[in-house]
This record gives sequence, structure tokens and C-alpha cells, in this order.
Amino acid sequence: EGISHEAFSLAGHLKLKKLIVIYDDNRITIEGSTSLACSDDVKRRFQGYRWTVLEADAHDFQSIDRAIKRAKRSKDRPTIILCHSHIAHGSPNKHDTASAHGEPLGEAEVSATKRALGLPESEQFYIPERVKELFAERRRFLERRTAAWSRMLKSRLESDPDFAMAWDCHMQQRLPQDLEKYLPAFDPAKPIATRAASGKVLQSLAAAIPQLVGGAADLAPSTKTLLEKFPSVGPGRYEGRNLHFGIREHAMAAVLNGMALHGGFRVYGSTFFVFSDYARPSIRLAAMMRLPVIYVFTHDSFYVGEDGPTHEPVEHLAALRCIPGLTTIRPADATETTAAWIAALRNTDGPTAILLTRQNVAVQDRSVLPPASSLERGAYTLWQTAEGDPEMILIASGSEIELALNSARQISSRCRVRVVSMPSWELFQKQPKEYRDSVLPPACSRRIVIEAASSFGWERYVGDRGCLLTLDHFGASAPCRVLAEKFGFTTQRVVELADKILSAR
Amino acid sequence: EGISHEAFSLAGHLKLKKLIVIYDDNRITIEGSTSLACSDDVKRRFQGYRWTVLEADAHDFQSIDRAIKRAKRSKDRPTIILCHSHIAHGSPNKHDTASAHGEPLGEAEVSATKRALGLPESEQFYIPERVKELFAERRRFLERRTAAWSRMLKSRLESDPDFAMAWDCHMQQRLPQDLEKYLPAFDPAKPIATRAASGKVLQSLAAAIPQLVGGAADLAPSTKTLLEKFPSVGPGRYEGRNLHFGIREHAMAAVLNGMALHGGFRVYGSTFFVFSDYARPSIRLAAMMRLPVIYVFTHDSFYVGEDGPTHEPVEHLAALRCIPGLTTIRPADATETTAAWIAALRNTDGPTAILLTRQNVAVQDRSVLPPASSLERGAYTLWQTAEGDPEMILIASGSEIELALNSARQISSRCRVRVVSMPSWELFQKQPKEYRDSVLPPACSRRIVIEAASSFGWERYVGDRGCLLTLDHFGASAPCRVLAEKFGFTTQRVVELADKILSAR
Repeated sequence: EGISHEAFSLAGHLKLKKLIVIYDDNRITIEGSTSLACSDDVKRRFQGYRWTVLEADAHDFQSIDRAIKRAKRSKDRPTIILCHSHIAHGSPNKHDTASAHGEPLGEAEVSATKRALGLPESEQFYIPERVKELFAERRRFLERRTAAWSRMLKSRLESDPDFAMAWDCHMQQRLPQDLEKYLPAFDPAKPIATRAASGKVLQSLAAAIPQLVGGAADLAPSTKTLLEKFPSVGPGRYEGRNLHFGIREHAMAAVLNGMALHGGFRVYGSTFFVFSDYARPSIRLAAMMRLPVIYVFTHDSFYVGEDGPTHEPVEHLAALRCIPGLTTIRPADATETTAAWIAALRNTDGPTAILLTRQNVAVQDRSVLPPASSLERGAYTLWQTAEGDPEMILIASGSEIELALNSARQISSRCRVRVVSMPSWELFQKQPKEYRDSVLPPACSRRIVIEAASSFGWERYVGDRGCLLTLDHFGASAPCRVLAEKFGFTTQRVVELADKILSAR
Repeated sequence: EGISHEAFSLAGHLKLKKLIVIYDDNRITIEGSTSLACSDDVKRRFQGYRWTVLEADAHDFQSIDRAIKRAKRSKDRPTIILCHSHIAHGSPNKHDTASAHGEPLGEAEVSATKRALGLPESEQFYIPERVKELFAERRRFLERRTAAWSRMLKSRLESDPDFAMAWDCHMQQRLPQDLEKYLPAFDPAKPIATRAASGKVLQSLAAAIPQLVGGAADLAPSTKTLLEKFPSVGPGRYEGRNLHFGIREHAMAAVLNGMALHGGFRVYGSTFFVFSDYARPSIRLAAMMRLPVIYVFTHDSFYVGEDGPTHEPVEHLAALRCIPGLTTIRPADATETTAAWIAALRNTDGPTAILLTRQNVAVQDRSVLPPASSLERGAYTLWQTAEGDPEMILIASGSEIELALNSARQISSRCRVRVVSMPSWELFQKQPKEYRDSVLPPACSRRIVIEAASSFGWERYVGDRGCLLTLDHFGASAPCRVLAEKFGFTTQRVVELADKILSAR
């Protein structure tokens, strides 16, 4: 798998000398001999990654032991041990065969193998006494070590309040309760890209949350994710808080999973939204393992502009929203971006993806609109013509909120229109039905969804009688304002749709 | 990117001696020096892939020319030329800087660069006369070559009917008009996994369509995609029709794109459905480029069973359906599998993914049910209690058709129920509205969708008043019949839902 290249290359670069990889070199794959599809000189490949390469006989315990001991003495390189092995070792008829990879041995062959290996045939889970003793002895040794370590920790926690605080932050993932007060304010008079707002928020969070570490897959200047006051992790230098993952999105997501599983850090990783496809298998695993990883995906729509369709996400919002257990948040402006980071940090039950714009968007004035902290409920009424039940609802997320608000002001002369900001389906779905029905009253079926992405899935909220202003084809290369015009993301088009819906009744 | 490892390793294995890769080794990435994130010994890495590694000075034409000439003499290895270069070469202030990667030089620096390189400052697109002449001369040479080759081809096509037929098949992608008659019949008495049915269909197609070639990412025995009567492609042996891609899903999808762009073959690739995530970026590109690539994704739901949640697709159907231009087909049984292959082969305007079961499913008896060729319309009425407008519709795809039919027979005593087989949203969406309304009459809002996958997106067809029997969480590891019970994929559950819908009116 390609991810192996990304991870091995990064580990070699970072001189992760404690890392030992045992390579089960049995020369068998599902289709047959590895020689069907692979001729790598594995030793040379790993030397290319600046690893130490050792070899061992996988069926000789002394040989493995010697290799591991040597690997542990490594000064500045990870080690791979090429363990030459035979699949189905000991099986008289399946030894070194591809069928031993993909199929069970079968009862007869299991018996024959036990005979060949000198094991008792009758026992299904046989553990020799000698092995039991070895493990029991090891367990006693480790229990003593653990107890001594725990005593040391306890005394340190009691005597050193600074250490105790750091321990709490790192190992208990403690967050300041008054997180909001650390965060920057944004001037409603100054439009700002949500990626840029996120960058500012992140600087404040970095000061307040010592366990927060992260990085980008070679896009930090664009995703605005560098923690400016803190050093970078590099070869032999692990005290930094910025990780340079290189052009390795898949490994980045996998490394974040590993760090989250290990504990001690709250981690984030970033790249362009369209490249989330590269990281998808590891995002899925984060969701399955309920790991509190945060993804910062910027350049979140066709508004990327000149880079063209390869770099313009269209189906990616739907593709993330359909992953069970992943929370996606697409904030509308700088103020919602702040709230998105707080929601992401408070979500400890699974991964969160924050989707941000490349282009500037208006900063909504929260002195006249509901607070951006309403984002924590997933969707909320941002604006309405007048009090009372809405006669039409515009639902939007991210950069399209500005368009929804501008359009709603024009539609106001025709009917009582509500604008719902819906940055997160998943957070909204967690709300009680009464809340959901208060934001999207079932009686109001005149709905327009505005989102610069595929319509896929939006029927859930727009309903049978609603109307979609979305993008169901790939983007194009042009200045983003030109694309908005061509793709119909204009107030004129929204007002036309509103008129169409109103006249249909 | 990881895909580079997959592709380079495969190219080295296959001894693709004609392949020359020019590596622009400028030591700069977006974040700064490549030394921030990469310490690879590139030369050794490529030697590990069994490539020839040459070096050249990227700013010395003679040096490049010498390297390319040497590479073209390669006997059995691909060649990479490490071209040592300077980014923004000639620019007085941006030479060798990261900002030259991510930002335009700017007008002043462009002028300064032109001065430094001795180019006229006034011209924006300057082509020296000497270069124009060189290209014109080359063009005349190639036009003569092309004309001679075209004459040779024409005479061969006229004189050699076998060659003309082969040319038509390969270069014009000609398919037999009576494709259906080459395909196997399936016995309704013998349940068979759709992956196994696909394997049988593929053997027949291989005989009828000489340009059909493909392979698997080390899963051919499981995906049943080996063309049994034809040899494999291997190092130095390119006449085969089976490709062994190895454990390289992403490269597989990219290679299929390359072959489709080149022409001459109709290509397919296969793996387990859950691993489609690995190939996703290249699937997206196939859709964007409208390439007629066919993906065979087997093991298409939690019915995979014991392999557990990592290997059980849940969100993958939605994740494919949301890609613009990709056609997904999830056939219900062996007969629809045959039709799915025909639909895939006839779709020359974009990629098609065929989703197949690991487990056996009933073969529907087409002597009493509508023909499986109805699949070409995306969805069709498979069965109904009696003539007339349906009072309830069960919509299902793939392995859930069997469940839908069994349930419908029980629900029949309560109301007039219709079972709609819906193997392909995309094919259905292409039908005229009258057809779509005839299959799913808008007046019938009592609908149940049954699909062993995420509900995401199904609101489009089930409507506001319908009901979903889907899977909105990850799977689990157990025998598939146990999982079906736990996840509610039982006739009992479908009948309960039907009762609930009926009593709600």
C-alpha cells in the first residue's frame, strides 16, 4: 500500500530510532507468490528511507531476539527486520502456499500440522507450561515496575503543581473551562477567509491548550495551521508542536490516529479539502475507533477558482457526512469558525472535520444576530424577516450564508423568510426533536438549500417540496466570481427559485 | 504521495523499459526546503524498485539530452532522471525559494528575471526564432511519419480482414451487437454469490471481447476476475490479458485511467468494496475525464461477516453515488449481474462501478419475473401483488432484493405492494420522468427502502413519509446471518415497518 511509503519515509526523516518494524517476509500473497506482482529490493528501498535493515529467521527465536536487541541499540534510525518466514510453517501440505493465506487450513491439516510440530492434537488452544511460566514471570516483573512508576507519579503530582497541571492537560485532555475568553474577536467590517480566521483562532488556542499539536501535509502556509510561537518537530527534535507531514495526507491521518490512541496530545492535521480523499481510509478508522482527531480542510468549494476542477471539492461534503461517527462542521464566517474549533475540541467521542474557505467571506455582526456559539447545536435560525412562523426557509452552510442573507433580504418583501445556518448535520441530528422542529418547522415545506457542493443527501432537510441550489457536476477553472455567476450562486438565482416555489402554491 | 510507491514498484517489477520519469529535484516544497519533511535517498529508493537511476543538470540541455538518450537504450528497466534544478531559475530574488512555488513572481521580478536571462522584457509570450524553427522542422518530420504510417494502416485494413476486425475492436472499442447471446444462463434453483456470477460472465465476455483486459489488487481469487483462458502480464511479457496489480489499489485505478486514455483496451480493475477508498482519488479523475473504466468491487456489505467492521462497507455506496459522472450498479442476483456487465460495457461516457456480494443470493426466476435487462433503466418493477396502482413500494438493491421479495409476499395480505429493484440510481436518473413516475408513482408515498448500507441520500427516493431499513453505523464481526438478525435485515422487521406505515395513515 502507498501509505507504507509515506509512513516509512517520514519515520526515517524524523530519525525515529525507537521504531522497530518486523516484516513477515513469506513471499506469499492472495494471488500466489509475491513474484507475481513485486520485485522490490526491500533492503535497498528501506536504506533509501534511511532505515537500518536487519534480517532474521522467523522460525528461530534466537535469531529474532538478536535482531530486536540490535535494533534497540539504534542511535538515530528506525529499524526494519526482514523476517524470512514460511507461511503455514509446519503444515505438511500447506507450507509456503497461497491458499494458506486466504483459506482456513481445515481440520485434517490442522491435525497433521500439530503432529508435524509435536503438539498435542486434542487441545484446541494449547499453551505449553513453559510459556505460561514465562508470561507469568514477565507479568510479575511489569507489575512491580508499574507500581513503582505509579508511586513516583503520585508523589510528583502532589509535590509539583505545574507538573500536575501539565499532566492533567496532556493525559486527561483537560481543556480550560473558559475557552471562549481566549479567542480573538473579529470585526464585522472586515471580510476574512474562514481559513485565515481559523489561523488566528489556532494561535490563541495554542497558548491556552498546551497539549494541542498538529501540522499540515505541506500546505501550512495555505491552511494557516502553523502554531507561530512554537517550534517544529524535526529529526531528533521532538519537543516542537508543529508537525511537517510532507506531501503525505494518508500517513498524516494515520499518524494522527496513532497519536490519539497513544494519548498525551490533542491532534489536528490539515490539507486542501479535495485531498481528504487521500486520507479517507484513515479518517474512516478514526471514526470507527472514536478518536478525537481534528481535520482542518481548507479550499472547500469551487470558489478555489483558477486551480480548476481537480482542486475543487464537489462531492466531498457528502462523502464525509456519510461516514458514521465523523462530525463535519462548515462554519459560515470568522465567528462560526471560532465556535467550530470549540465544538471540535469538545467532541472527544470521535473525529471532527472543519471545512474552511480559501476566499474572503463577510463577518456576520453578532451584536445584531444570534451568537455564533449556536453552532454547537448544528443548525440555528440566523435571521428572519419578522417574528412568527416562517413562510420560507433558506438553509445554507459556510460561504453560502452570505448569499442566503443577501437573498433573504430581497425575498422579505414577498414572504416571511428565515435563514438557517447549518454548519453541521451531525451536531443538529443530536439535538432533541423539539429543537430541530423549532429551527426547521415541519409545517414550512417551502425550503431552499444553498450549498456550493453536491446536493447528495440534502433531501433529508429540504424535503419533497423544497428546492436545491447546489453543484451536481465538477467545477471549472476561472476566477471564483465568474464561476459563482456561471453556476448560479447569485442572489438573482435564489430569488428566482423563491418566486418559483411561491408561485407553485 | 503513496501512489508514487505503488506505481514505481509496479513499473520496476514489470520491467517497463520504455518508461522515463524526469524528477524535478529542486529541493523546494510549499512549506520550505524539502529537508523539513523528507530525507529520502532517492537514488537508493529507486534502485530498490529495480529502476535505472540517472542524474542530469536541469539547466543544461546537453546533460538532459544525454540522460534521455541513455534511458532510451534501457534493456529491461524503467529509468528515472534526477534533474537537479533551481526553482525560479534566473530570478534574482526568488531563485531557490519556497515562495516561488506557491506564489506568482510578480511583475517587477518577472522583468528582473527576463533581464537576468537576457530575454526581451517587452514580450509576454516570447518564442525565439531558433525554437520556432526547431519545432516547425520536427512537425514536418512527424507529419511525414504519420502520413506513411496512415498509408500502411489503410492498406493493411483493406487487405487483412482479421486485422481490420482486431483494429475495430481495440481502437474503435467495437462490441458485438448480440452481446447477450454470449452470456451464461443461471439456474433459479441454485443460489450463487453475485461475485461468482460475475466471474462466469467475465469468462464469456473475455471470449467475445478481445480488447477486454483487467485484473485485481491481489484479490483475483476472491473477486473472481481472472480471465481463465488467457495469460497474465508479467515482467517482459505484455501479451497477456490479466494484470496482477499487487496490493496497490490506488495505482491500479490510476493505471486503468492511463490505459483508458491511451486507448486500445477496455479495462477493469477489482478489489473489495471497502478498499475503494484507497482508489478514490483516481476514481474521481476517471469520472472527471469521462473514462470508460469498470471497477468490480466485491464483498459489498456487512454480509462479509467475520472479517468485521474494517472490511464491511457501510458508507461506500453513498460515497460512490455522490461522485458526479460515476455510474454505480449493485445487481440483485446472477441475472442482474449479467445485465450489469452489459450496461457497464455500453457506458462509454464515464466509469462504472459494479458492486457484488461475497455471499450467495437467490437467482430470480426470469421466466416469471420481468427480464434482468430492465436493469439498463436503473430501476424497475420486479414484482407486485396484483395489477393496479401500488399502495406500498419496497425499494431495494443487491442482496436485499431477496429480502424485499420475501417480505412483500407477507405484506401482500395487507395491501397491494410493489417491489422495485433499483440497482443503479444514475441509470434511473437518466430515464424520462414518465418512466420514473411509472416505477415510483408520486401518489404512493408509503415506501420502504431496504439496503445494507448507509441511508445517506435515500431520502431522494423514499420521500418525507417513507421509511428506511439501512445501516447507519459501522458493522461488526460475526457470521453474516447473525449480523442480519442483529441489524434488522429480516422479513419480520420489514413487515413491522410496513405495519407501522400502514397504521400511520
